Amino acid sequence: MSVTAATGFRAAGVVAGIKASGGRDVALVVNEGPLDVAAAVFTSNRVQAAPVLWSRQAVADGRLRAVVLNSGGANACTGPDGFADTHRTAEHVASALGVGAGDVAVCSTGLIGERLPMDAVLGGIGAAAAALCVDGDAAADAIRTTDTVAKQAATTNQGWTIGGMAKGAGMLAPGLATMLCVLTTDAVVDAFTADQALRAATRVTFDRVDADGCMSTNDTVILMASGASGVSPDVPTFIDALRTVCADLAQQLIADAEGASKRVEVFVGGAASEDDAVEVARSIARNNLLKCALFGNDPNWGRVLAAIGTTRAAFEPDALDVAINGVAVCRAGAPGEDRSTVDLTGREVRIEVDLHAGTESATIWTTDLSHDYVEENSAYSS
Amino acid sequence: MSVTAATGFRAAGVVAGIKASGGRDVALVVNEGPLDVAAAVFTSNRVQAAPVLWSRQAVADGRLRAVVLNSGGANACTGPDGFADTHRTAEHVASALGVGAGDVAVCSTGLIGERLPMDAVLGGIGAAAAALCVDGDAAADAIRTTDTVAKQAATTNQGWTIGGMAKGAGMLAPGLATMLCVLTTDAVVDAFTADQALRAATRVTFDRVDADGCMSTNDTVILMASGASGVSPDVPTFIDALRTVCADLAQQLIADAEGASKRVEVFVGGAASEDDAVEVARSIARNNLLKCALFGNDPNWGRVLAAIGTTRAAFEPDALDVAINGVAVCRAGAPGEDRSTVDLTGREVRIEVDLHAGTESATIWTTDLSHDYVEENSAYSS
Repeated sequence: MSVTAATGFRAAGVVAGIKASGGRDVALVVNEGPLDVAAAVFTSNRVQAAPVLWSRQAVADGRLRAVVLNSGGANACTGPDGFADTHRTAEHVASALGVGAGDVAVCSTGLIGERLPMDAVLGGIGAAAAALCVDGDAAADAIRTTDTVAKQAATTNQGWTIGGMAKGAGMLAPGLATMLCVLTTDAVVDAFTADQALRAATRVTFDRVDADGCMSTNDTVILMASGASGVSPDVPTFIDALRTVCADLAQQLIADAEGASKRVEVFVGGAASEDDAVEVARSIARNNLLKCALFGNDPNWGRVLAAIGTTRAAFEPDALDVAINGVAVCRAGAPGEDRSTVDLTGREVRIEVDLHAGTESATIWTTDLSHDYVEENSAYSS
Repeated sequence: MSVTAATGFRAAGVVAGIKASGGRDVALVVNEGPLDVAAAVFTSNRVQAAPVLWSRQAVADGRLRAVVLNSGGANACTGPDGFADTHRTAEHVASALGVGAGDVAVCSTGLIGERLPMDAVLGGIGAAAAALCVDGDAAADAIRTTDTVAKQAATTNQGWTIGGMAKGAGMLAPGLATMLCVLTTDAVVDAFTADQALRAATRVTFDRVDADGCMSTNDTVILMASGASGVSPDVPTFIDALRTVCADLAQQLIADAEGASKRVEVFVGGAASEDDAVEVARSIARNNLLKCALFGNDPNWGRVLAAIGTTRAAFEPDALDVAINGVAVCRAGAPGEDRSTVDLTGREVRIEVDLHAGTESATIWTTDLSHDYVEENSAYSS
């Protein structure tokens, strides 16, 4: 159940002294082969952190030997000096492992706009390289920022395995990926298949998580394949398995989102297109007034309709149906069942919208907007 | 300084029994002529309240005799029955004033998805018609929902006046207007000029207010001209004066936005187009993480850059400058002055962004995201 669940991988997580808390803050994941196939997707934010710019180049040839990750600093908006820091980080890992720097991806997470303490980072890399083992737990711990728990997942098929770890609790509205995620497999796959599978899997998992509408500068999902199982799965089976692991990790992210007291599933059906369904579901998921109402156990469906009305999706206002936790509170754009019959006391909330405009659908997972979210994010950098 | 500041208008505000609080909840503003010129702009939300649908038709011919407004219920998402309620409301006003129902605009504000108590509404209209006077204060009070103060403004030019009142404290991100606003003038203007002036004035005032990113189903701004001054101002002068009153009311709205502890001015300059400047400023104004940081007096400029990066505006990430309350915390996309030198202890916050991509600019006014906002909106309908 970790980033080392697949054979051919070792990992480590160490205390490097970057985080003020004194917790683990440098992780290393190494692919020992025989293959060194890799694919990655990154944030679609146009302001991209130095490690994103670096890793995008590193993975361009479909090959990676290692990923080094640090928490305690995002190394974003740090200019040319910040990029040089990332380059130096990759060089240091390459030297410790005896590989080329161009085969080392770098991921960073934490506060934007501050340089990393490079002495600590480089020391941490040395310690991590010395601590590499087949237990991935320490690595998953080392990439946490405001995450209260580590997120790991794995699935095993006929002779091959996919494992992974992820982090992300705030600024969680991935554009192509989520904060940081490393996936590993011992299946024999080529770079084209790895890339195709990763895009297919993330499109309906990480891309459908939207905790706070704020897209990060550092989102990265990396998949490395070692081929150590010797098994070549057929592509649809591989994509299914990868989607299962991504969905598992995405759900762990939303369950641990900053300050959340609810896990909210927004399902939009009856859409003319999947894009329409996603746009409507995301508009609902980002509506602060609705999110506050859910925090207060208030089934205020008028705020759902107000959010739908700001989209460009195909629908008629007097055809909209909304159900909250199974109660049809709005039918044909007008009041349905009594809103007081909706039970919102539990942690799980399901909002179902029928646009009556087609047959497509999509789900976005989000959270409520709570006092704890405000508290945590009003004091994060200080 | 009210909706009756211009000659030719009378108004009233009464307790009709719609609001549970027992406060004033029905307002009436009557244009006594000699002209009955009017223009209006409405929410661009595609889910529109019954009174918006009605008033859009009523003002289509450029003429109105009266506007009736109620707080205590939005009459939105109430289906054909809700529209019939609005129709009946207009008929009742028309009968009390001896005018046609098609010359009566209706505005409602409050909870979405519930029918209005029509007995109370109709009783209130009778009482308001009997209480019409040249003092607009009671009317401005009667349209308040979560507004803590009434919002009124006026400006007098050479022989003519523009006055107005507005309400709106939450769901405050107008698409073409703000929650509810009635403007009056005794200038002699024709319907075309009134419409042109109203669109020009609201585009850079109410449309630039974005407290919580949530667009209402009921936003309405109505301008009525009585011509009672006998003075025909030139059009640019009239537009300037109208913009002054709209800007004054828009600032009063943002100052009283739900739960806000900060008034935040987001100025974006150096843009390739005004649309780019608005898109960037609005993205910053809607970023929950930044809004929480401002609540915590934390000049977390990385969140400004992350918000800019989600837009389609023309810019290069390594050319972005950001100043917060005059301190250049980010230069060329990298750290500038020490963030600890920014003083955020006051209520006023000014964020200045230079995109270095052109010469256009725009300002969006917003607020922070506070515990009080969460509290107020988690308990609004209950």
